[in-house]
Amino acid sequence: MLSKNVIIGQSGGPTAVINASLAGVYTAARSAGVAHIYGMKNGIEGLLAGRILDLGAVLDSEETVNLLRHTPSSFLGSCRYRLPELETGEDTYRRLFAQLETLGIDAFFYIGGNDSMDTIHKLYQYGRRIGSPIRFVGVPKSIDNDLPGTDHTPGYGSAAKFIATVTKEVICDATVYDTKNLTVLEIMGRDAGWLTGASALAKGEDCDGPDLICLPEVPFDLEDFLARVEQKQKTKKALVVAVSEGIRTAAGGYVCELAGSEKRKDVFGHRMLSGTAQFLAAVAGERLGCKSRGIELNTPQRCAAHLLSAVDEQEAFEVGKGAFAIAQAGRTGEMATLLRRSDEPYVCSVSAVPVVSVANGEQCVPKEYIAPDGYGVNERFLAYARPLIQGEVACLFQNGLPRTLKRR
Amino acid sequence: MLSKNVIIGQSGGPTAVINASLAGVYTAARSAGVAHIYGMKNGIEGLLAGRILDLGAVLDSEETVNLLRHTPSSFLGSCRYRLPELETGEDTYRRLFAQLETLGIDAFFYIGGNDSMDTIHKLYQYGRRIGSPIRFVGVPKSIDNDLPGTDHTPGYGSAAKFIATVTKEVICDATVYDTKNLTVLEIMGRDAGWLTGASALAKGEDCDGPDLICLPEVPFDLEDFLARVEQKQKTKKALVVAVSEGIRTAAGGYVCELAGSEKRKDVFGHRMLSGTAQFLAAVAGERLGCKSRGIELNTPQRCAAHLLSAVDEQEAFEVGKGAFAIAQAGRTGEMATLLRRSDEPYVCSVSAVPVVSVANGEQCVPKEYIAPDGYGVNERFLAYARPLIQGEVACLFQNGLPRTLKRR
Repeated sequence: MLSKNVIIGQSGGPTAVINASLAGVYTAARSAGVAHIYGMKNGIEGLLAGRILDLGAVLDSEETVNLLRHTPSSFLGSCRYRLPELETGEDTYRRLFAQLETLGIDAFFYIGGNDSMDTIHKLYQYGRRIGSPIRFVGVPKSIDNDLPGTDHTPGYGSAAKFIATVTKEVICDATVYDTKNLTVLEIMGRDAGWLTGASALAKGEDCDGPDLICLPEVPFDLEDFLARVEQKQKTKKALVVAVSEGIRTAAGGYVCELAGSEKRKDVFGHRMLSGTAQFLAAVAGERLGCKSRGIELNTPQRCAAHLLSAVDEQEAFEVGKGAFAIAQAGRTGEMATLLRRSDEPYVCSVSAVPVVSVANGEQCVPKEYIAPDGYGVNERFLAYARPLIQGEVACLFQNGLPRTLKRR
Repeated sequence: MLSKNVIIGQSGGPTAVINASLAGVYTAARSAGVAHIYGMKNGIEGLLAGRILDLGAVLDSEETVNLLRHTPSSFLGSCRYRLPELETGEDTYRRLFAQLETLGIDAFFYIGGNDSMDTIHKLYQYGRRIGSPIRFVGVPKSIDNDLPGTDHTPGYGSAAKFIATVTKEVICDATVYDTKNLTVLEIMGRDAGWLTGASALAKGEDCDGPDLICLPEVPFDLEDFLARVEQKQKTKKALVVAVSEGIRTAAGGYVCELAGSEKRKDVFGHRMLSGTAQFLAAVAGERLGCKSRGIELNTPQRCAAHLLSAVDEQEAFEVGKGAFAIAQAGRTGEMATLLRRSDEPYVCSVSAVPVVSVANGEQCVPKEYIAPDGYGVNERFLAYARPLIQGEVACLFQNGLPRTLKRR
């Protein structure tokens, strides 16, 4: 039973619902009567520097907690700090645990991806070594959906919903002219194709969906790609293809690096590296003699809180609550997870795994979810991803824009 | 009094509410008891080729018309066809008027920007020359808000709302790390800064807004820009600046051309621009020694129907209805306009101007709306733009995504 204080941090690249998880831990801790709920500013780096926030003073009303849930990006700030190995960096751990002791911390929660789970694992190991009673629990987040041990990660569903929506809208836009043209959408996910595959969700009775999808899990062959585009252009004038930012050739080089062969330079002689979409659009346009355009969906994929998936937002909150329950039960060194029971109806509950099985791991799209020709995803992928983009969240608008909770 | 048939076309780059205007003309014509309401596929080009749609057969229920209103991009398809001069291209006009006569057309509506108003003006002139009774009426649309003769253009408000929302979300995202960094947002609007200025709407009690805004109306000086970024970085680590794709140096060259961007042109001779943000982020990152990132908001600015401004969507519809009323009153050679009576409370009604005063004209952000130092907009701009992004439209979602009406 927790009696004193808890601390929460956020780390790594933010998502649109990472604050819903913060609200989940906070709400559960509050209900359990925890005395002080602290937030570390900019993750473990802020903790080391003693930059601490008393969340109880900030999240002082239900309305504020609700606003937090709909505010994109890490409310507490983030960091990309990697803890040293236990053997070589004991001084760092001593300082961290001294901070935690000063604050009277019972449980430590870290919301993040695989690097953050490495942090939880190391703290847990060090704590055990020195006989500390503090519990260390991880809360998963990643738009990339690449964490092992959980059916999916909070953050993925909202990113997938935004990507599928924008893909659908761009397809509407790209097909207005009665001329041959190609649009290349570049989607996040350097190693895992979960986000790129989500563009396939755009397909329905009112939309053809992308004409080709290139996942990072499948080696990319430029000539084969161009041949397929050319083939499709024989029956359809306007094509839209979706590619991962991380597609690589069989030799292992990133496709965007091929753009370097053009040696485009700016006025100062700096080499200007094109993105993957820009490069493919330029090459296809020239080789196939058609208009082309590259569109990088970019940062909005991870922060478009104006278009949250209700399922994702709720699960992010529940996973936060679940993480608190893990600590409350006296467990430590674990990460809260989502365990899917059924696709249709979609049933999913919060569970847990030892954080060691997650730290630094990576889960890519399995072969069984990829189309036989390698240019897309199949029904199994869609059955997996579709439940995660369901439902809309009514954001609070003020003066025409979604309100957010300003970082302190 | 119209008794027979009308025809409607859409032209130029689409917007998120261009179909609301189509629905407006259609709804008014239907109420007036017009026999056949035709749509030309791909604008005037489709009309020349005889590619006509009977809209009454497609828009056969209130639900379908409603769906049309929330479907982004031209439902009828678009074109970038420029009519020849009357003196040299009489054959084209003869063919067009023969088509209109065959269809028994009383009134011709064209939804578009300044190039489309040139089409309306030429058809009107030719019709007068041959004594045709057909009325030609323009319906304004432009995300760029650059049409003269109207307070603003339908399409601008929704684009501005999307830009301000994404700017706010990206600011949340860009400021999570406790390190010096610069984000450059690239916003559409080659010559007019209405869209870029709309990023300033992000500013409020919960958001600082962009730290600098570079409009195409203000000559861009790279050294001055870098000096200002450096100055601001002394008190604020993470900066977000918004720049127009069309910013130019005092000598007149586009900034993106400094990056070696190709000098591609579209059929109207407009230069196709890209890469301003990438270039500025790269140069600033190197010169100021900070992390930097360029984000091009790109096509979603003009097709994000999932985040419509309710004011804009309603006005787009009303302007369509108003265009029909103009023809109904026996007038021709005019464009429906929006006439603002008051900012607060916002009062705006539909009016009309001779299309000759609009065709090929362009309205930029006036000096009185620009900040004294040239790096932003002032309260007068905000008072002008703010009413246009108000209100949200409840899209119909199906399976997690906004439903649209598929183009026939």
